[in-house]
Amino acid sequence: MLPILHLDDPQQLAQLRHLYSALRLDAADLALSRGRRAQDAQTVQTILADVAQRGDAALVELSQKFDDSDFSAQQIRVTPQEMCQAAGRVPAEQMRAIRRSIEQVRQYQQHIMPITPPPLKRPGVELGLRFTPLDSAGCYVPGGKASYPSSLIMQVVPAQVAQVKRVIACTTPSRFGRSDLVMAAAHELGLEELYRCNGIAAIAAMAFGTATIAPVDKIVGPGHPMVQMAKRALAGTVGIDGFLGASEIVTIADDSAQPAFIAADLLAQAEHDPGSCFLLTDSADLAQCVLREVARQAATLERLDAIAAALKLRSAIVVGPMDELIEWANRLAAEHVNLQTRDDEAVLARLTHAGAVFVGPYAPVAAGDYVAGPSHCLPTNTSARFASGISVYEFLKRAGVERYTRAGLADDAEAIITLAQAEGLTAHANSVKIRLD
Amino acid sequence: MLPILHLDDPQQLAQLRHLYSALRLDAADLALSRGRRAQDAQTVQTILADVAQRGDAALVELSQKFDDSDFSAQQIRVTPQEMCQAAGRVPAEQMRAIRRSIEQVRQYQQHIMPITPPPLKRPGVELGLRFTPLDSAGCYVPGGKASYPSSLIMQVVPAQVAQVKRVIACTTPSRFGRSDLVMAAAHELGLEELYRCNGIAAIAAMAFGTATIAPVDKIVGPGHPMVQMAKRALAGTVGIDGFLGASEIVTIADDSAQPAFIAADLLAQAEHDPGSCFLLTDSADLAQCVLREVARQAATLERLDAIAAALKLRSAIVVGPMDELIEWANRLAAEHVNLQTRDDEAVLARLTHAGAVFVGPYAPVAAGDYVAGPSHCLPTNTSARFASGISVYEFLKRAGVERYTRAGLADDAEAIITLAQAEGLTAHANSVKIRLD
Repeated sequence: MLPILHLDDPQQLAQLRHLYSALRLDAADLALSRGRRAQDAQTVQTILADVAQRGDAALVELSQKFDDSDFSAQQIRVTPQEMCQAAGRVPAEQMRAIRRSIEQVRQYQQHIMPITPPPLKRPGVELGLRFTPLDSAGCYVPGGKASYPSSLIMQVVPAQVAQVKRVIACTTPSRFGRSDLVMAAAHELGLEELYRCNGIAAIAAMAFGTATIAPVDKIVGPGHPMVQMAKRALAGTVGIDGFLGASEIVTIADDSAQPAFIAADLLAQAEHDPGSCFLLTDSADLAQCVLREVARQAATLERLDAIAAALKLRSAIVVGPMDELIEWANRLAAEHVNLQTRDDEAVLARLTHAGAVFVGPYAPVAAGDYVAGPSHCLPTNTSARFASGISVYEFLKRAGVERYTRAGLADDAEAIITLAQAEGLTAHANSVKIRLD
Repeated sequence: MLPILHLDDPQQLAQLRHLYSALRLDAADLALSRGRRAQDAQTVQTILADVAQRGDAALVELSQKFDDSDFSAQQIRVTPQEMCQAAGRVPAEQMRAIRRSIEQVRQYQQHIMPITPPPLKRPGVELGLRFTPLDSAGCYVPGGKASYPSSLIMQVVPAQVAQVKRVIACTTPSRFGRSDLVMAAAHELGLEELYRCNGIAAIAAMAFGTATIAPVDKIVGPGHPMVQMAKRALAGTVGIDGFLGASEIVTIADDSAQPAFIAADLLAQAEHDPGSCFLLTDSADLAQCVLREVARQAATLERLDAIAAALKLRSAIVVGPMDELIEWANRLAAEHVNLQTRDDEAVLARLTHAGAVFVGPYAPVAAGDYVAGPSHCLPTNTSARFASGISVYEFLKRAGVERYTRAGLADDAEAIITLAQAEGLTAHANSVKIRLD
């Protein structure tokens, strides 16, 4: 089911390259709306236009069509009473877990709040850096195939810690989108605005606004490729986070690793629908042991169809020298990277691209998914090459604060005037001259 | 030429709202490629597809068509010799100014390099934050209407300070794109790859790659709306910075301000083609004085057509109470905000959205444009509501580094397993259980 590919076998290397290409978003396909994306792009555009024009009426129709045939306008906004009642129905053990997750995520996000450096000073010049929060942010919580209170927590807490004034969330109106768990988590978060509507329509509503949902300045969150395409279509007019699609893990391991632990992590990622998992190892023995463990553990799990498809179509065990494996890890730029080697620090030092790194045998991705602290909303499809996961940074803007005295300006004046005149911008030059005349 | 609008006059307030709407990118127009954007979106898509398919041949044809009819493939790459020779031709005074700009921008960007916090520790758990640079970045330097060495400096230096391995730049092949100043600045920056080609084609080339230009992981830089649309079409498959369009200033001033200084700053922004400028003041007298100064100074300037159009169509002096003016400044979320009031600190404390802030009478935007230190590549069209200017942060990614001991995992295990099971992800739960059995 899970192929073992040796880097020194040209055919198997070609297979790995093929897997990599499939994982990596094809700039041409996506940007040009061609290939497999053509139909999707058209659907997204149609839905965006519909919501922009008809607002709530479009939300209701689209939600009826894609999620729940009984959906009505009154169900769009989840009332605080609904949230509170849901919290009352959720078992105490689950409420404890939700509270622990919120608390630990909040602690971490507070811990990593950016430190404002003191102003840089030259005589007569002070140059500061200033972080300010967004006024509003909208979080999208997927809910088509299951209910994900953790996704709500992992988006809302960083926004709250960044002190965004208005944080809202949308989730699907399906069975899962109406889950007590999501509403209970919203209650615990003190969220005032939680909405239900179809995914793409939700993105459109948060950007354009409708009678029920006031627009926001930035839209974040994971979801299927068409939800990501909808976000992208709005980038620049609202802020967006990045491309947060299907889930991935890359585990780098040598023969010191525990095959059972690795297999469990691979399977955990494979049960995402769709998921993808890679083990990169320099030990052919470990590769075989992990393969056996995957087969053994899979038999005990649910969601077997999703797991089998992920293992067969989007995953591999790759065997080769450690140097080449680390290069492949950087190329794959995975959402999650787990290190289980004799010298994890040496591997970490050479690992340049990853959404999040889990170091050692006792750091399963699942810990990060739920309670560790860093958000589990991470860049996918190799976009960790250039993007970061959701954190307080996502909800803060940076601005330079530039202060000059007359003497400070006099000192820089010659260079400013020279460059402005060289660029043909005489009014720029004049704005300095007039201050010093 | 420059309208004075009083907030207490309903008709004038409506005019200000109209100006604001025109400035703000219309999410619907842009996302749905409708209205004024429909034709542009089609042109952008056609050029992206052409470069993706035909590579260098398309670059040459497009550059011939839009920029320079004599353009040939040999001119795409600017050789190091060309850069060096250009540096030899540039007057010594200009070279000194270029060096000063590079040095001061570098100093500031080094100063604001993010500080990595120590790991957050709980018993058996360590949660770090890690910054890593991108492998490659492409900077777009506009050059259709003038030559902008400053734009090259303001993009390349932050990328270099962030330690991006491969930094490349593209500029137009027009008369201005071939300027000695840009090539000399590239020489001083030690830039190894500088290319000339048409704007939209350059963005496509940096994303898809051609025989001459290898692709990059992130594309940044200012440019006209279609260049920004091209960047946006590629977002997610490559990183992009944001929407860096036409130039804007908002000056907030009271009757303590110098009308001549304010007028000079407004005119400096108006000479951008297209530019836009706003003075927000609680003093009707100051408004009149600034208006007279604008008329007086404008007579001495070049680029009068651009200035007249900007003042008439995209600018205003707004008179009203300071509280409302600050609200308007936050709504306008301008690229540059200049404060010239009796208590700038009080205004600054309430100013939440700005690309960069210039405090006091001796801090003209022109200083920031050329030599102060913070990059002059800033969010425009109200996007400072959610976006930041280019800095080292643009070229660094953040990743959580999560470490657990067995005891640490045991402590979090119940919460992880409870939430995983509640979300129906049994393999996630299993990946924790198997480690503790």
